[in-house]
Amino acid sequence: MKKTLLSFGLASALFTTAVAGGSGDWSYHGETGPEHWGDLKEEYIMCKIGKNQSPVDLNRIVEAELKDLKIDYKAGAVSIVNNGHTIKVSYEPGSYIEVDGIKFELKQFHFHAPSEHKIKGKQYPFEAHFVHADKDGNLAVIGVVFKEGKPNPVIEKLWNSMPTEIGKEVKLAHKVNAYNLLPKEKDYYRYSGSLTTPPCSEGVRWIVMEEELEMSKEQIEKFRKLMGGDTNRPVQPLNARVILEEE
Amino acid sequence: MKKTLLSFGLASALFTTAVAGGSGDWSYHGETGPEHWGDLKEEYIMCKIGKNQSPVDLNRIVEAELKDLKIDYKAGAVSIVNNGHTIKVSYEPGSYIEVDGIKFELKQFHFHAPSEHKIKGKQYPFEAHFVHADKDGNLAVIGVVFKEGKPNPVIEKLWNSMPTEIGKEVKLAHKVNAYNLLPKEKDYYRYSGSLTTPPCSEGVRWIVMEEELEMSKEQIEKFRKLMGGDTNRPVQPLNARVILEEE
Repeated sequence: MKKTLLSFGLASALFTTAVAGGSGDWSYHGETGPEHWGDLKEEYIMCKIGKNQSPVDLNRIVEAELKDLKIDYKAGAVSIVNNGHTIKVSYEPGSYIEVDGIKFELKQFHFHAPSEHKIKGKQYPFEAHFVHADKDGNLAVIGVVFKEGKPNPVIEKLWNSMPTEIGKEVKLAHKVNAYNLLPKEKDYYRYSGSLTTPPCSEGVRWIVMEEELEMSKEQIEKFRKLMGGDTNRPVQPLNARVILEEE
Repeated sequence: MKKTLLSFGLASALFTTAVAGGSGDWSYHGETGPEHWGDLKEEYIMCKIGKNQSPVDLNRIVEAELKDLKIDYKAGAVSIVNNGHTIKVSYEPGSYIEVDGIKFELKQFHFHAPSEHKIKGKQYPFEAHFVHADKDGNLAVIGVVFKEGKPNPVIEKLWNSMPTEIGKEVKLAHKVNAYNLLPKEKDYYRYSGSLTTPPCSEGVRWIVMEEELEMSKEQIEKFRKLMGGDTNRPVQPLNARVILEEE
């Protein structure tokens, strides 16, 4: 009984810290982990009842006439924060992608380890998510997976400013261009999904780049160590969806 | 005030009838109409918050390598009922389609007037929905739109047994084969959607046939008159979805 109370007290303390850091009440493990997200708050209900959730295993692929992705990014990454769930890099206004004839502005990018998406069953050690919103607040997210290999110079720059303290936003000495964290080949998979964290809102245009990038084992470990373990939601059922791939 | 009470009394009476007919508490008009479905019951929440709802205007079309639809229907339509929302024809076990390598069994088909789906902005006067379920209860629905023209002989057979009383199931004299209510050309549109009636559950594989069929003005009017007006949910936003079409 004493142990339970102690655990509860500890959990409360961690919870408070997390909230202070703006990271909310959910986590990647245990009683506030992914399988419980939908029960933590009424607002998180889609995590439980949604039929079009992310991430997914990109494995029911249909070849399609997808349009080339229009990307117009400026060097606009201005600050970096450890929000308790990930390292998030905020972007200043003025960088866009165009999907379905609609402009989506890059708001921030952040990371997960291991990868959240699987590509034809394969999980990668790391994934970056570039989050864009149109003028009505609809989201389009680009996912890029990384394999272990050579150090990535852009990640290196970011990790040099990596804040350990939760919630403390650090200004980047030099603005980073997110374009340099995209692969050279811009072929992509596309599907309709959701946020991969609570509230798991759907209606998100997911663009996952086919080409993988590289980063070093040390770079991956630095992120994993700071996060204290895995930061990926498990893959969700495709249900009625298919994944589109450029022919 | 007197008039309001009278209206309410009438509404209550209709409501009771509807419930007796197994048709529930929703309708296509007024205070229990489509724009209120999500507020009528907690179980209907997806009607309000879902981002992958049906019907839709099939207008953000991507050409794709869709597989031919495998259809294996027997003459299995055994009974017909006016459930207060539509005329529903129940199917006996043993008729299937195959989508994504999964077998879906035809359970029933029913009708809407005017059409629920629009094809590139065009609404039709009538639409048939063939509802299939796999062994886990996942749904796949084939939609067929009808324009006004020559009388349709299969519709004629069905309408000859059309029950006016709500909830009374009538056995069909001769089993009808739903295959004869599909167009000759089996090219189709595909997208991930929902039930078009409460509870508006998502994760439904929608297959809308490209070729339209014909039925007479009288056949359409007979259905419309029995239903007492329109029986279509308005088109819903596509949000992050695209519509696939065979190349």
